[in-house]
Amino acid sequence: MNSDDRNPIASGEATEMGSHAVPKDAARFDHQSHYLYQRVVDLIRNQIIDDTLNTGDRLPSLRSMSVQMQVSIPTVRQAYLELERQGFIQAKAKSGYFVQMPARRQIVSKGRSQRRQPCKVRCRQLLDKVYDAVHQPGVVPLGIAIPCMAQPATKTLHRTMKRVMTRTQEQILSYAPTAGDASLRSQIAFRYQQQFEQVHGDQVIITNGAQEATAIALQCCAKPGDIIAVESPSYHGHMEIIESLGMLVLEIETDPVTGVSIQSLEQAFARHDIKACLFSSAMNNPLGSLTRDDDRAALVRLLETHQVPLIEDDVYGELIYNGRRPPLARRYAQSDLVMTCSSFAKTLAPGYRIGWLLAGRHHERACQIKRALSCSSGLLQQLTLSEFLASGEYDRHLKRLMPVLKNNAQRMRAAIEDHFPHSTRVSQPQGGSVLWLELERHFDSRRFFDDALEQGISLMPGAIFAAADRFNNYLRLSYGHPWSDAMEDAIQRLGQLAHLALEQHPK
Amino acid sequence: MNSDDRNPIASGEATEMGSHAVPKDAARFDHQSHYLYQRVVDLIRNQIIDDTLNTGDRLPSLRSMSVQMQVSIPTVRQAYLELERQGFIQAKAKSGYFVQMPARRQIVSKGRSQRRQPCKVRCRQLLDKVYDAVHQPGVVPLGIAIPCMAQPATKTLHRTMKRVMTRTQEQILSYAPTAGDASLRSQIAFRYQQQFEQVHGDQVIITNGAQEATAIALQCCAKPGDIIAVESPSYHGHMEIIESLGMLVLEIETDPVTGVSIQSLEQAFARHDIKACLFSSAMNNPLGSLTRDDDRAALVRLLETHQVPLIEDDVYGELIYNGRRPPLARRYAQSDLVMTCSSFAKTLAPGYRIGWLLAGRHHERACQIKRALSCSSGLLQQLTLSEFLASGEYDRHLKRLMPVLKNNAQRMRAAIEDHFPHSTRVSQPQGGSVLWLELERHFDSRRFFDDALEQGISLMPGAIFAAADRFNNYLRLSYGHPWSDAMEDAIQRLGQLAHLALEQHPK
Repeated sequence: MNSDDRNPIASGEATEMGSHAVPKDAARFDHQSHYLYQRVVDLIRNQIIDDTLNTGDRLPSLRSMSVQMQVSIPTVRQAYLELERQGFIQAKAKSGYFVQMPARRQIVSKGRSQRRQPCKVRCRQLLDKVYDAVHQPGVVPLGIAIPCMAQPATKTLHRTMKRVMTRTQEQILSYAPTAGDASLRSQIAFRYQQQFEQVHGDQVIITNGAQEATAIALQCCAKPGDIIAVESPSYHGHMEIIESLGMLVLEIETDPVTGVSIQSLEQAFARHDIKACLFSSAMNNPLGSLTRDDDRAALVRLLETHQVPLIEDDVYGELIYNGRRPPLARRYAQSDLVMTCSSFAKTLAPGYRIGWLLAGRHHERACQIKRALSCSSGLLQQLTLSEFLASGEYDRHLKRLMPVLKNNAQRMRAAIEDHFPHSTRVSQPQGGSVLWLELERHFDSRRFFDDALEQGISLMPGAIFAAADRFNNYLRLSYGHPWSDAMEDAIQRLGQLAHLALEQHPK
Repeated sequence: MNSDDRNPIASGEATEMGSHAVPKDAARFDHQSHYLYQRVVDLIRNQIIDDTLNTGDRLPSLRSMSVQMQVSIPTVRQAYLELERQGFIQAKAKSGYFVQMPARRQIVSKGRSQRRQPCKVRCRQLLDKVYDAVHQPGVVPLGIAIPCMAQPATKTLHRTMKRVMTRTQEQILSYAPTAGDASLRSQIAFRYQQQFEQVHGDQVIITNGAQEATAIALQCCAKPGDIIAVESPSYHGHMEIIESLGMLVLEIETDPVTGVSIQSLEQAFARHDIKACLFSSAMNNPLGSLTRDDDRAALVRLLETHQVPLIEDDVYGELIYNGRRPPLARRYAQSDLVMTCSSFAKTLAPGYRIGWLLAGRHHERACQIKRALSCSSGLLQQLTLSEFLASGEYDRHLKRLMPVLKNNAQRMRAAIEDHFPHSTRVSQPQGGSVLWLELERHFDSRRFFDDALEQGISLMPGAIFAAADRFNNYLRLSYGHPWSDAMEDAIQRLGQLAHLALEQHPK
């Protein structure tokens, strides 16, 4: 309740929308009520959040819940599985399901969304500071999100690169083709094909990271002054590129579990001429949450109805802890209005600057823009990656990386639990390498950023994940480096700082 | 006289401008008459072009010319030195100066400029074809301009890179800072300082080649719909990036020797709201011509008067055959309205995709755009280049490369002399790796491109060096690969094709 998402202005707007007649309890269900099991999920989730249910409490049995909610037993089972997936409950053999929320609460949905206006991005100068901090030598790196550094594949990658250098000789000094090296494009397509995606090498355009892919995708379907919808919170790089192209950002309410609010998006479509949606539709950064396939399908259906292109950022697609790669959003589409941006920056080597774009119907134009922007991407890195993928080293690397990340997440959550103010809420990431922390409403993450940096710790203040003046009581902490005493110590010091900050500047 | 630059429309426009009263001879001098020696240069140049003077003819002695033109002997000497630099005449010890124009004439200025309108770039599809051809395996590579491949520094570069990999280990996998690695930025600045340029490492932004540098520079000072002045002919990459940013191109008459026409540019300023000039002010691509320092200084003065920023493409700055690196345009400026784009793509390794931008007053904004566009550039390549420069290997490489390029140029010119139609004019490049060929007016370089590709030869049709419908009777041939029998043979086959083309499709 201490978020800036429930301020009086927002409520006022909701009232204007004619929703004041909806009873409080019903409001919790309304936009998800089309799935029966979801009603069960929401009920229990809300009871946990309200402290009606507490850590260690046993849930009603499947049968009793089925009677209570007037749904079938399989529906309740599905709901419990979903709650387990979300980290709210835990199955114990022969004993049933138990609430497993830590004392520290998870970040949860803020309920009804607030109406927002398209706007320019205002956090550029803050971002300058944040990026300067990231690269200061000696700082504890809780800022930048580079999951792959938790277990870097340095040796095998270097060995592969040296082999490529020996094999290709002077050829490697020359330009790669505009759309990229054919072998790497095939390898990327092949990975998708193994996941039953209909992707061919010819459809892949190699870019300078997902960031350039996003820049190209946006230029394919929008022009300066156009409105682009993003998640809220949203990866700051998305907003930076929209801003640098002279476009406007429209933030859409995004639930930590169900993803982009279909309802908010529908309302936004009714009010604004949205030219494209730029979403991390499978896993949000900074939320670290995995959106259900059903919700993503509904999202794509909505976009198709309105014929609005979806630019999907899929950089975390291969870093999901349960090992199941979410389908690309294009899988749910009838037409080719989905573009996908991804890269090897999160999984393997950000410094390589190799990403890719599936541009769908805009393929030809996207190639022209790529050529105009940067001719082509680094050839040596492309051939190295191609060989790294083909040899199976990439899969072996991901297999090694995943448990390390999961373990880092647990350690960082535990450290936060121990040292941060009790009121702090923490996300339970389903992949990637970041935690999203919500502090009390009056917490000032900009000031906290400065204080932390003075202590030699870099982090991301929440304010950079919004176009303007939101999430200032949030922080993003990355566990994408090997866990160490220095990390543990940094969290402890941050916790002390947070206590101090809340005391010195009370509500 | 067979160029499309002297068509009736152009003459008509010149008449409208009220210039029909200027006597024919005077017209040859008017916009250069402020330099006395230039009058001598122009007189002799025109006599060579008119066949009044022929190859092997002896020029008047310094003294007799001084009397004839009523200028001092040092002025005549300066003129003769300039004519020698331009390749029109040659000094022979104790005998004087002789006309050394080959039977094949050099490409020369087209005289008065034609008035042009801002326009969109129309050659995108042709460029798609050209770039596809460049990367077809087995084609003779006369298309793409990569001077460094004539004498690639593969071994030393690979050795350096392997050393960097060993030294940096996993650090090398991570992101470089937005503006680039500090050591490389310092090395680049240091090279400039050795040339007496006032450049500091902090002012250098590392980019994905000069192409991205140009994209960033343009976004710093112009927005979609704005007019950008370019040379004519102009590097196609310049026009592509202007087009992809939704800006308009205004082509300014460019002389093979004196560079951008100050007169044309003045007229353009009077008629249009030009937001920036994007010029290769020192050495034009495809002309291969070096503009005199005086002319560049005059250009910068004009731009300062109008407060129009100059974006200078300096990628060929270190590839001038006489060994004298032209000063940066910023040297002539009183204010910081010059931005410089350059890269290692022409001198060393295009595949590395490492360039840089000196953004002057726009530095901060340029960093933000760089971050938005592609986060940062490849770290491994940056550290490798930094070490390569620091060790002196880069200078040693350039010293080895230069005579090879110069020799390639001579061989290719000779081969063209032997095999192309007699009416073909050829540029005499002062650096870089391309020849610019002018064929008879009715020659169709688009068709010729297809025919050549069928024979396994890639080249650049002249049409891609103009925004729309110009230079279709021109070709650009690159000698930036080791000279070989295959090259020699390719030129012979191209010559035959050109004969055929002119016969099959006569005027």
